[in-house]
Amino acid sequence: MTSKTALDFNPEGTVVNVGGVAIGNGRPIAIIGGPCAVESEESIHRIARAVKDAGATLLRGGAYKPRSSPYTFQGLGEGGLRYLRAAGDACGLPIVSELTSTERITEFEELVDLVQIGTRNMQNYELLKAVGKMSRPVLLKRGLMSTIEEWIMSAEYILDGGNENVILCERGIRTFEPSTRNTLDLSAVPIVKQQTHLPIIIDPTHATGHWDLVESMSLAAIAAGADGLMIEVHDQPEQAWSDGAQSLKPAKFKRLIERGRTVAAAIGREM
Amino acid sequence: MTSKTALDFNPEGTVVNVGGVAIGNGRPIAIIGGPCAVESEESIHRIARAVKDAGATLLRGGAYKPRSSPYTFQGLGEGGLRYLRAAGDACGLPIVSELTSTERITEFEELVDLVQIGTRNMQNYELLKAVGKMSRPVLLKRGLMSTIEEWIMSAEYILDGGNENVILCERGIRTFEPSTRNTLDLSAVPIVKQQTHLPIIIDPTHATGHWDLVESMSLAAIAAGADGLMIEVHDQPEQAWSDGAQSLKPAKFKRLIERGRTVAAAIGREM
Amino acid sequence: MTSKTALDFNPEGTVVNVGGVAIGNGRPIAIIGGPCAVESEESIHRIARAVKDAGATLLRGGAYKPRSSPYTFQGLGEGGLRYLRAAGDACGLPIVSELTSTERITEFEELVDLVQIGTRNMQNYELLKAVGKMSRPVLLKRGLMSTIEEWIMSAEYILDGGNENVILCERGIRTFEPSTRNTLDLSAVPIVKQQTHLPIIIDPTHATGHWDLVESMSLAAIAAGADGLMIEVHDQPEQAWSDGAQSLKPAKFKRLIERGRTVAAAIGREM
Amino acid sequence: MTSKTALDFNPEGTVVNVGGVAIGNGRPIAIIGGPCAVESEESIHRIARAVKDAGATLLRGGAYKPRSSPYTFQGLGEGGLRYLRAAGDACGLPIVSELTSTERITEFEELVDLVQIGTRNMQNYELLKAVGKMSRPVLLKRGLMSTIEEWIMSAEYILDGGNENVILCERGIRTFEPSTRNTLDLSAVPIVKQQTHLPIIIDPTHATGHWDLVESMSLAAIAAGADGLMIEVHDQPEQAWSDGAQSLKPAKFKRLIERGRTVAAAIGREM
Repeated sequence: MTSKTALDFNPEGTVVNVGGVAIGNGRPIAIIGGPCAVESEESIHRIARAVKDAGATLLRGGAYKPRSSPYTFQGLGEGGLRYLRAAGDACGLPIVSELTSTERITEFEELVDLVQIGTRNMQNYELLKAVGKMSRPVLLKRGLMSTIEEWIMSAEYILDGGNENVILCERGIRTFEPSTRNTLDLSAVPIVKQQTHLPIIIDPTHATGHWDLVESMSLAAIAAGADGLMIEVHDQPEQAWSDGAQSLKPAKFKRLIERGRTVAAAIGREM
Repeated sequence: MTSKTALDFNPEGTVVNVGGVAIGNGRPIAIIGGPCAVESEESIHRIARAVKDAGATLLRGGAYKPRSSPYTFQGLGEGGLRYLRAAGDACGLPIVSELTSTERITEFEELVDLVQIGTRNMQNYELLKAVGKMSRPVLLKRGLMSTIEEWIMSAEYILDGGNENVILCERGIRTFEPSTRNTLDLSAVPIVKQQTHLPIIIDPTHATGHWDLVESMSLAAIAAGADGLMIEVHDQPEQAWSDGAQSLKPAKFKRLIERGRTVAAAIGREM
Repeated sequence: MTSKTALDFNPEGTVVNVGGVAIGNGRPIAIIGGPCAVESEESIHRIARAVKDAGATLLRGGAYKPRSSPYTFQGLGEGGLRYLRAAGDACGLPIVSELTSTERITEFEELVDLVQIGTRNMQNYELLKAVGKMSRPVLLKRGLMSTIEEWIMSAEYILDGGNENVILCERGIRTFEPSTRNTLDLSAVPIVKQQTHLPIIIDPTHATGHWDLVESMSLAAIAAGADGLMIEVHDQPEQAWSDGAQSLKPAKFKRLIERGRTVAAAIGREM
Repeated sequence: MTSKTALDFNPEGTVVNVGGVAIGNGRPIAIIGGPCAVESEESIHRIARAVKDAGATLLRGGAYKPRSSPYTFQGLGEGGLRYLRAAGDACGLPIVSELTSTERITEFEELVDLVQIGTRNMQNYELLKAVGKMSRPVLLKRGLMSTIEEWIMSAEYILDGGNENVILCERGIRTFEPSTRNTLDLSAVPIVKQQTHLPIIIDPTHATGHWDLVESMSLAAIAAGADGLMIEVHDQPEQAWSDGAQSLKPAKFKRLIERGRTVAAAIGREM
């Protein structure tokens, strides 16, 4: 094991630079907002503008969607990714999107500022090795069935390949509780900080699955010490092609950021 | 079903009065501190003074301990409860202790300000019916593998008996994650507030099982909207008869309260 | 710890005598059949006759039902228990019923051959201590949220009180899988046999929650080495007051026993 | 959705032909035996002969191992696969091995009779789509925290690509019970048979993680109606490079098959 592993103590802590936005080690709390999926050129530009105005620092949107059923919407593909890139550039927001296949490494290397590995691929070791060779930073979501140790081990696959810019993202784990989509495991925040030098962000949208739980879990994540939030935002959630019921409207997203800034200040951080 | 059920919407919200301390519906966040078990007359007086000085508003301590093995320490019994009562009176702190049997209802009615029903007894319906007849308020812990709906149904047993002073306490649920004792389900806070008019408090000590995770989870609980915290405190945790590794020392408990007050203020509450 | 603990190796293995039926240590596989709840004097006599004719060796029926909601049917109480006793006597079947309170110890001591402690009371230590003083054998169901180690520890509470006649019953554990009520953990059979000298039986009815899964899980339980089965049977399941969808009709129960005998013979046991 | 989906009712049931061995729809119960990983040319030939002599009908062995840590043995790669092929041919056993990357489709198409998709890749949709285009049958393991519905949906990805030869494999799900590696969910057998026309086999080795639980869970699987078993066998488990503690020695594997044949006969099947 080389000296650059997730588990190694790093007295400085890692700061990951995502298209000019610094994340981790006490830097301002990052706010990633945007729709579940890029649905059209027009809508992603419109939503990008709305999340930027609300205070987001990065823009998210899926172009390749891993869906449980082969018969549901699978994303707009490369065209969607180019719409996202243009929308981010128009607003001055770096972009985040999920990579699901080694075959699209070149496309993501060109277009995406922060390459997301989704929960279903957390142990897709071929994909981890491939992003370990990329020059772009990686956002590694926790598997919804994975222990924190397994998650850190998956981060090791990326670091071991030479890519040191890894951000971890807790997005809820599977439990017996049916009133939320998954159970947000906020204790992952202090544990990851004890055991690694990597930044950790929280995705309260997928963890809860209900837009009306997103604000309180976001405030809790900030208080727990998270380095960022990733939140689904849609201006017409009732018409979204996927995950509408868990998306915040821009006005509620803005209010969340305002309240979040107050909590961040209370623990000595900016947002 | 009468009009006084947990599930009924109550525009006012319930405020539970525990020996003069008002809990719930926006009242100041309650801080319950003290040891896992009352170990001696001297030690409980000493710890009571320490938690009072740190800022606690109630004193906890077990006299009847439900333990998984019959061969481990089972608590000091009624003697322990009387030590706790005296220690609380000496410091001006109402006391909280766990009731495990209908046979001790009279004793608890006399001595205890807030009667705790533990996680293992959340569906002990005989005990729920019995405390439903008590005049003392009840703290109902969530079963460690119970759904929120089942937990609220158990509260209904108490309310149905005529006792409307019920406080719910989330203390972690059982998951596959081994690095914490249980997984703290903070989404229970907004869900309980949506579905009931009862106060809800958080026990980060039992949820995490590690003292060094207690502060961050406490701050997260406050930010999520909890009405109180219950935290194990021991001045000599390395010598505690049970649960030492998860107990905070008084100095760390004091720091937690100070930081908690800042977060509470950020969301417009007192503590 | 005395020499009579569940964990102690006993080269002979424990055989529990329930009203003349020997259970455990290679004795014929016991078949407990009957309704979820005793619903009337007439119906329990009718069902008792049907399960006896199908091949059952014991009769079950609840008189005190622990229900998640206080507003659902709670059982016929002592009257129901006396109906069950009479129905068992009429057919020559020992009876099994669940005890939920220490207040009814005397009643159960008089009327019931095998005293069941239900899943919600597996860690109700007051109740465990009380049945540890009874002369009747005890059927200890696994908590739906309990580890095998905790379950064996709960058996220790009963043995420690002096009652050595304990039978363990696996009834499914809570998991994330929604297509069954719980997940039947058949590996509990060989593990309990490795770690204790106590008999273990399987309840496929509550584990699966669907009558059409009961036969295959019963055959699997026999092949795994279980010492008995407990199965809900109702002659009019569509009209049952509780749990109708998981109850077998007598004809299907009879077929299950016939197929079970063939599997039992294949592993060198009788049924 | 075309007519060839897993969920469609097929009155005939699917029989999958794996290198001349028919699996499913009442055909003799398939026995897949072999080591966790191919360790050397010599050892795989030796073990192949031993499992063949014991009664196995297919040979398994990993050449590309998905391991949680990047610092542990990752398999011999294509060389290992060729050793496995030669060992299978020498004994007349079709071979099973896990595919972890779309980059090795051609290699597996040439060398492997039954292409295994492992538990960590059950929702690696790129890989599922790729094997949907293969001419080789596919063994799809259930994700260790996936619902049965999600698992069947993943099978749909393969069938939707045109590959109708899919066998499902239950290998244990993640629960809170620590005494087994995972919890074997045998109710998946009747549920899969109710909802699909696909064969289902059971892997008791990974489900339990302990060699001394494998035989009883294998017999239970047969009694529950499984179409096959996949069991790790090693002649020197104490020296195995991975998973030694859960591997059976050939003599115990042989005894398991002999006992299994008796149970299979009891339910009217061959093995």
